[in-house]
Amino acid sequence: MALIVQKYGGTSVGSPERIQHVAEKVMAARQRGDDVVVVVSAMSGETDRLVGLAHKLDPRPEPRELDVLLSTGEQVTIALLSIALQKLGCAARSYTGAQVRILTDNAFNKARIRDIDETAVRKDLGAGRVVVVAGFQGVDEDGNITTLGRGGSDTTAVALAAALKADECQIYTDVDGVYTTDPRVVPQARRLARITFEEMLEMASLGSKVLQIRSVEFAGKYNVPLRVLSSFQEGEGTLISFEESQMEQPVISGIAFNRDEAKITVVGVPDQPGVAYGILGPIANANIEVDMIVQNVAADATTDFTFTVHRRDYSQALDILRDVAIGMGARELSGDNKIVKISIVGVGMRSHAGIASKMFQTLSKEGINIRMISTSEIKVSVVVDEKYLELGVRALHDAFELERAPK
Amino acid sequence: MALIVQKYGGTSVGSPERIQHVAEKVMAARQRGDDVVVVVSAMSGETDRLVGLAHKLDPRPEPRELDVLLSTGEQVTIALLSIALQKLGCAARSYTGAQVRILTDNAFNKARIRDIDETAVRKDLGAGRVVVVAGFQGVDEDGNITTLGRGGSDTTAVALAAALKADECQIYTDVDGVYTTDPRVVPQARRLARITFEEMLEMASLGSKVLQIRSVEFAGKYNVPLRVLSSFQEGEGTLISFEESQMEQPVISGIAFNRDEAKITVVGVPDQPGVAYGILGPIANANIEVDMIVQNVAADATTDFTFTVHRRDYSQALDILRDVAIGMGARELSGDNKIVKISIVGVGMRSHAGIASKMFQTLSKEGINIRMISTSEIKVSVVVDEKYLELGVRALHDAFELERAPK
Repeated sequence: MALIVQKYGGTSVGSPERIQHVAEKVMAARQRGDDVVVVVSAMSGETDRLVGLAHKLDPRPEPRELDVLLSTGEQVTIALLSIALQKLGCAARSYTGAQVRILTDNAFNKARIRDIDETAVRKDLGAGRVVVVAGFQGVDEDGNITTLGRGGSDTTAVALAAALKADECQIYTDVDGVYTTDPRVVPQARRLARITFEEMLEMASLGSKVLQIRSVEFAGKYNVPLRVLSSFQEGEGTLISFEESQMEQPVISGIAFNRDEAKITVVGVPDQPGVAYGILGPIANANIEVDMIVQNVAADATTDFTFTVHRRDYSQALDILRDVAIGMGARELSGDNKIVKISIVGVGMRSHAGIASKMFQTLSKEGINIRMISTSEIKVSVVVDEKYLELGVRALHDAFELERAPK
Repeated sequence: MALIVQKYGGTSVGSPERIQHVAEKVMAARQRGDDVVVVVSAMSGETDRLVGLAHKLDPRPEPRELDVLLSTGEQVTIALLSIALQKLGCAARSYTGAQVRILTDNAFNKARIRDIDETAVRKDLGAGRVVVVAGFQGVDEDGNITTLGRGGSDTTAVALAAALKADECQIYTDVDGVYTTDPRVVPQARRLARITFEEMLEMASLGSKVLQIRSVEFAGKYNVPLRVLSSFQEGEGTLISFEESQMEQPVISGIAFNRDEAKITVVGVPDQPGVAYGILGPIANANIEVDMIVQNVAADATTDFTFTVHRRDYSQALDILRDVAIGMGARELSGDNKIVKISIVGVGMRSHAGIASKMFQTLSKEGINIRMISTSEIKVSVVVDEKYLELGVRALHDAFELERAPK
């Protein structure tokens, strides 16, 4: 008998019929003998409806009151799912974030969980009940309702699983797992049976938007095995857990890519201390997030400084740097917003040499020019022209034999 | 400076535009220098929408979970009204029933208030904030969300006013006060500037559905002056308070009527102990509410026992009594569901003789036959044929000069 935390997102509970379907899935887990805690989001569309009502009164509603408003979305779902479960003859009890006492700080709209009191939940589980918890919400020390920000239901599920020392935290979504790459680009892409937290973090931050990064970090921190599954089809999904050294790891697990990048180069700045800060300081002050950063030292005591930003921030970043570049004595400011980033990710890189050069060779064979390179312990990222995205990803998927399941 | 509790029902907060209008009314009260606590219902239609969702999953949803579901309706409104107030520059803070700590028993769907902790509300009022409280809901000792049943927002407002010792509890509705009778029947009907609790209870239970009876009882018990006003038009409304002996009371205050009555007579039952219970016991067991009860003793040691029920219960009550009447040796069982009840109500009756006979004389002049009579200290009710309703009410309104305001 295991203790399982299951999380169902807005699409999975988007109508009474779908809630009924979720109740049947929960019931099936109970009948396998597992204790089940279910975390649910608001029904799809509900949060937008509520925000719409608030915006009719104030385009920038007061954050405390917005949380009072938005938290009703999940509260509706916990009640409906509990009603559906009981109708099936499955004892169940709903909890709002405040009722569990999911204690958060008081940063309304983006609160962080500080502590979870699992007493009441444990008591209900002990009495044979399914416990249904509202995701995305908590309560601060003064009893104010808080929300964790969009997508926060995943975090609630993982935090509850950690507090309850659950055997597994299952995230039900509209995809059936994590793939070696986007199947829309590579039809042979394969569902991964398992992946490590680190790989998942690299995949997630690179655009595989299956899970909220924050919940993966959380799961890793508290060592909660996380499983991504589809709420609409049967299957084992993908288990995200810590690397197990006894296992034969594949060299690389997946290929992530990001179409939203743009790059900016400050050419020929004097190679002296303070250059990086001089360039990136004004960018950070404008709240523009920087992704890759590359600096090469040239022979003539000047350097080229290149970084990438989200495409929507591209022209603002260029505007900011025009004066900065002149002030620094740079030769030129150049940019390109028709680029993409492709990354190979895998913990196997740690113990295998030559992975990066195999990547470069593969791209070179296809005539794809590499514009930037950046590496970390478990990934290699390259920036290439936008038009090469599909060709590059397919060639790499093939070269690393990702369509074949590891032995 | 007064402390006012204002309550706005579902129609008054039925859209963002109407919530905006309510915010302006609250703001106006603040600007007059009053401290204001606002109690709101769910937006009109919302409770029905939520019940509809629940019914798709279970026609008889579990009561605890139904309360979790329904309580979101008012929670949405408190957040929206607080947002609207703050947008107007009026400091405001919302409270759910649980956040105030409106402690109730655990009778889900029809809970009763046991205690209100007014500490937090007082603190906010002291800090110059408008406090916006969700009506209709509370929390039991175990932290479960409860609701007070439909219309319970009035009760919340009165209970809060009592706990805070407010100067007045204002109930905003879609009518502008309590009238001497229904203006659709008597165009000359006049809005009453004031009425006593006892009169209001008689008026309400007789069909003037302006206020929930429970909230009037509550207000009377805790001596909270209650004012009924329109949220859509300006005006003083009607003040409901205790009788003030120094005032010249009008003899009667209003004429109530009820079209939903049916009467049943058990004719010629032996006049012996246990007759009333023998007849009404089976009726009560079937959960049928009985209104008027009249028994006449006849010369031949038998009696006729007559009572009225709601028309929807008429045929069921007749069915129940057929065997009962035979068992008691009654001569006959008869009934009539084409009758109505007309009542004159007024605390002035206490000190004025001849009110009842003036009523009977007035009806007699119009050729209206009286089928039943029942009296209490401050009202006289008669049952007449349905077709005489309008004629009777108009004649009485005229005879008691209700169109003229008291001096």
